Amino acid sequence: MTGSPHVDPERIGEVLRRLRAHSPRIHCITNTVAQTFTANVLLAAGAIPSMTISPEEVADFVGSADGLLINLGILDEERKLAIPLAIEAALSSGKPWVLDPVFVDRSPIRCSYAKSLLARKPGALRANLGEITALQGNEDLVEMARTTGAVAVLTGAQDRVNDGVREQVLGGGNPLMSRVTAMGCAEGALLAAFLAVEPDPLVAAVSCVTMFNRAGEMAGRVAVGPGSFVPAFLDALATLSPKDLNRERITA
Amino acid sequence: MTGSPHVDPERIGEVLRRLRAHSPRIHCITNTVAQTFTANVLLAAGAIPSMTISPEEVADFVGSADGLLINLGILDEERKLAIPLAIEAALSSGKPWVLDPVFVDRSPIRCSYAKSLLARKPGALRANLGEITALQGNEDLVEMARTTGAVAVLTGAQDRVNDGVREQVLGGGNPLMSRVTAMGCAEGALLAAFLAVEPDPLVAAVSCVTMFNRAGEMAGRVAVGPGSFVPAFLDALATLSPKDLNRERITA
Amino acid sequence: MTGSPHVDPERIGEVLRRLRAHSPRIHCITNTVAQTFTANVLLAAGAIPSMTISPEEVADFVGSADGLLINLGILDEERKLAIPLAIEAALSSGKPWVLDPVFVDRSPIRCSYAKSLLARKPGALRANLGEITALQGNEDLVEMARTTGAVAVLTGAQDRVNDGVREQVLGGGNPLMSRVTAMGCAEGALLAAFLAVEPDPLVAAVSCVTMFNRAGEMAGRVAVGPGSFVPAFLDALATLSPKDLNRERITA
Repeated sequence: MTGSPHVDPERIGEVLRRLRAHSPRIHCITNTVAQTFTANVLLAAGAIPSMTISPEEVADFVGSADGLLINLGILDEERKLAIPLAIEAALSSGKPWVLDPVFVDRSPIRCSYAKSLLARKPGALRANLGEITALQGNEDLVEMARTTGAVAVLTGAQDRVNDGVREQVLGGGNPLMSRVTAMGCAEGALLAAFLAVEPDPLVAAVSCVTMFNRAGEMAGRVAVGPGSFVPAFLDALATLSPKDLNRERITA
Repeated sequence: MTGSPHVDPERIGEVLRRLRAHSPRIHCITNTVAQTFTANVLLAAGAIPSMTISPEEVADFVGSADGLLINLGILDEERKLAIPLAIEAALSSGKPWVLDPVFVDRSPIRCSYAKSLLARKPGALRANLGEITALQGNEDLVEMARTTGAVAVLTGAQDRVNDGVREQVLGGGNPLMSRVTAMGCAEGALLAAFLAVEPDPLVAAVSCVTMFNRAGEMAGRVAVGPGSFVPAFLDALATLSPKDLNRERITA
Repeated sequence: MTGSPHVDPERIGEVLRRLRAHSPRIHCITNTVAQTFTANVLLAAGAIPSMTISPEEVADFVGSADGLLINLGILDEERKLAIPLAIEAALSSGKPWVLDPVFVDRSPIRCSYAKSLLARKPGALRANLGEITALQGNEDLVEMARTTGAVAVLTGAQDRVNDGVREQVLGGGNPLMSRVTAMGCAEGALLAAFLAVEPDPLVAAVSCVTMFNRAGEMAGRVAVGPGSFVPAFLDALATLSPKDLNRERITA
């Protein structure tokens, strides 16, 4: 396992251009706390969200989308019926799906449920250290990526992206990102959008995290607190250019 | 069918004054992505929102409201139980209701469901071109208005309001409106508020779209991107005066 | 019943410092309109929100939280299953819970349901005058506090906090607070956070309302309308210091 940068800023800029040119449709089964902000993050970045949870129509929506997010932030009976149908629709049409196992460290039942979804081969997994540990019994990101076959995105003070062979560590962002709800949930949705336009999952995930953190830095320069951070962050996602990503410090 | 303006700015100003004087209560059965922004749009414009979806209490809420929005953006079992009860409560007490058939072009099941609701005689229908086409098999707005008896509001680069006899085309707005989630959903709720204070559905709908687009123009003058557009838009809805509507270019 | 101030600004400052030092976890079963803003208010003030409504996992979440909010703004079947389990988990682990009986004046069924919850001994009740009257048949706040054993927080042009023996009247705030959705719902969640760090319910409630209204005044100085009020309010919650509370006019 090496820490050297596998994806350079020029490549990330290309992926961002592709995202904006293709405007991928991302279907999100996500929690109601995160829905509005997630939709606005996707729209600002250049993607198109849909969010129905109805079991009878979810396969149609995923079938006409380019990627899928499954976020466990709020689970209800209807979401639990819709989730396997949505994943099946994504897998059968060859579309990437992302798992965000929010708060699996707070409930054993939710943790078991997340484990059963990991067996359905998500293209990417986004989690913090507590969630990785709850899922796997240890903090080993390489093992998580190898066992599941997913590119694993560990978010924290520094972010790590690992596909079981390669790892890239990413800095940047802004401390206010942890004072705004659904910031991580929205990043999981954006991850699905990047996977929809870039076939190498590690490149897609590094591009996503780089764009997200860069927008966080830009927002941090104008925000007074967590309230004004939100509009500034969405503005930055919409207006940042591939050149802005060039200035990103890729640490590894 | 003529394109000449049927509603002039002075009349629209009067309707807006009535909206603010009466503060109509609007019950919204709408999707969870749109709820917060929709409630804030109604409050900023001068109306009072309620949003419960519980079948056992929805009739009481509609009964003590002045108008109803049915938005299909996210359908779940509970909403499907509540919707017919809410419509029945509106019809039996003579209150206007608005249908917003979001994304009927993405799911045949949702499209059938929307058609069954159209038969319950909404006072107004708000849709984009893809949704109109999915519902009717063609793009003919006059036919849509005549068949359903609803004033039809087609939103797009230009907006068209048609009651089967008269049509008014409305410009204005701002391109950032398509980069913010639930903008159209919120406009559907505002439409119910205008129908609650103005008996002529065409006048109500033209007034609603004029106010909405004018607020979009005002917000566009101060917004940096889609994030800062949202608070600026709500500020504009709350602070614009009937005189600001006078400056609206009514194109026809 | 006296109107003299029972809690002085120094004491309120201490409670605020404790809130920020302890970052209490607050589980909120609240309506979907209010969830995002409520989560952002808790995060800005220094607390940590969770919001699942799944009956099978809600006891785990409440068990690992420091306080609970039950808000009736949108009731659905799943929330009605989760609410008694959440209250039971709070009571059995000695954690405070808050009831916010939103809109009980709009539906007799909801009002009966709220009364049944009052019998489960919330630590605090937050309501407006219409809701108090619907619950009790009269406006008497002392009676409400004595009958239920809860500290009663009546919000309106002036706010009153009453524990059945002591009452404190609180001014401040800003008129724009009534033009933003979920402002009161979020205050109910913050009340649970203050109860989690301060054992005297009257002191906790007075501290909460003081912080909330002071943030409203600070936001009112920079907001143009209800849209820009929201980020300014969250910024103020995050940045206000105990010294800012000192300048609060405690009226009684």
